[in-house]
Amino acid sequence: MSDSIFSKIIRGEIPAQRIYEDDAVIAIMDINPLAEGHCLVIPKEPAETLADLSDDAAAAVGRVLPRIVRAVQKVTSAGACNVLQNNGAEAGQEVMHVHFHVIPKPASGGLKKDWSPIEVGSERTAELGRQMARLL
Amino acid sequence: MSDSIFSKIIRGEIPAQRIYEDDAVIAIMDINPLAEGHCLVIPKEPAETLADLSDDAAAAVGRVLPRIVRAVQKVTSAGACNVLQNNGAEAGQEVMHVHFHVIPKPASGGLKKDWSPIEVGSERTAELGRQMARLL
Repeated sequence: MSDSIFSKIIRGEIPAQRIYEDDAVIAIMDINPLAEGHCLVIPKEPAETLADLSDDAAAAVGRVLPRIVRAVQKVTSAGACNVLQNNGAEAGQEVMHVHFHVIPKPASGGLKKDWSPIEVGSERTAELGRQMARLL
Repeated sequence: MSDSIFSKIIRGEIPAQRIYEDDAVIAIMDINPLAEGHCLVIPKEPAETLADLSDDAAAAVGRVLPRIVRAVQKVTSAGACNVLQNNGAEAGQEVMHVHFHVIPKPASGGLKKDWSPIEVGSERTAELGRQMARLL
């Protein structure tokens, strides 16, 4: 993968406001936030998408999410928040290094989504599920 | 927390199509999918939101996300996907037991979001970041 802005932040070559760091993970404030307190949780391991990330690095990111969510909600007084992770430009990924958005949900604003389930059909869903299960 | 549909699925009291299971996590097909292959990764530990989840359970969920993403993208041929986790009804949470949506992003459809950054100001962002860092 090409070097990303997040790799440079992890190496301390360009500035960012770090709010958390351990051996495997950093968390920084998002400079283009959807809401006050919007931050990013980033594995230090270089991987473009979650599909490329090692199990250990993914576990390390997962492990810190609860404390980040608690801190964000405490500081912003938001009673709700969304965690969003985009894989691929078509899914909205802008920096090609895995990152999880933690976005507080204030009374207005935050992550706006159009939740429109589609009709797939139980047989098709079952077949897709069987195919996935064989890979897992 | 009150008993949720996911607790009942975990205990095998109501049916669901499981695609993955280990000691701490199950993954099932979403019956109201945003796209073909939309599935859910659920910690067995009962917790309403990520803020209530133990670090170990959160790490266990994180650990399996890469393989679930790979399986979903392989089976659906989607080149992109979104991982979304909603905390609180205001954030779109419908079942009050932590779950991560893995939603393939086909050419049309999938998760639709309106990404509209707001103006927070660097000083305000820095102050929020300092407050969060003190809690972390």
